[in-house]
Amino acid sequence: MSLDPKVASRLKRTPDGLVPAIVQQYDTGEVLMLAWMDDEALHRTLTTGRATYWSRSRSAYWVKGDTSGHVQHVKSVALDCDGDTILLKVDQVGAACHTGDRTCFDADPLPLSWNPA
Amino acid sequence: MSLDPKVASRLKRTPDGLVPAIVQQYDTGEVLMLAWMDDEALHRTLTTGRATYWSRSRSAYWVKGDTSGHVQHVKSVALDCDGDTILLKVDQVGAACHTGDRTCFDADPLPLSWNPA
Repeated sequence: MSLDPKVASRLKRTPDGLVPAIVQQYDTGEVLMLAWMDDEALHRTLTTGRATYWSRSRSAYWVKGDTSGHVQHVKSVALDCDGDTILLKVDQVGAACHTGDRTCFDADPLPLSWNPA
Repeated sequence: MSLDPKVASRLKRTPDGLVPAIVQQYDTGEVLMLAWMDDEALHRTLTTGRATYWSRSRSAYWVKGDTSGHVQHVKSVALDCDGDTILLKVDQVGAACHTGDRTCFDADPLPLSWNPA
């Protein structure tokens, strides 16, 4: 079993064979995190309903929540117009971020030097 | 003028000096697109209020909407917990995607082989 060749043929990968996956809470729209998938991680995500990534730091597959319990149940998966980004809508159990924050973007807003309307 | 050194020191860049930027409509939560920034593109985005990227295909800065009119007015910018992804909330004028779709993820949902609850 491997990724459907029709899907695989549409993917544009980085030189190390990965595609970035944007992970969004399906109902609130919160952007939770960015992770990376190779073909096998995408295949597992599409066929198991559990968000599965390639960990660049550990060089291993990573089923989100297997260690932390903070599982992501997959609701939908889409490719972008260029085939080089994946959008994953999930139902996130608990915190998405390893810091304990709900999303990986909660802690570090950057200052803007004009006044947004 | 260049990127604030305090911000620059927190960025983790790809080997080609880029950071992926997730672009989200600030009020509806739609994920519009993924683009790439180098330090200068982030600096311009933070100081002008117009979303500015590095185009990998054209090797040039790209002020979103300068050609199409489909401008992105920046509402907020945040770094993720690892400093390797940017989340940009914008007010998107018109279509975000060059295909004319509102988002770059509208056209290509992938089939799931289980039944999501």
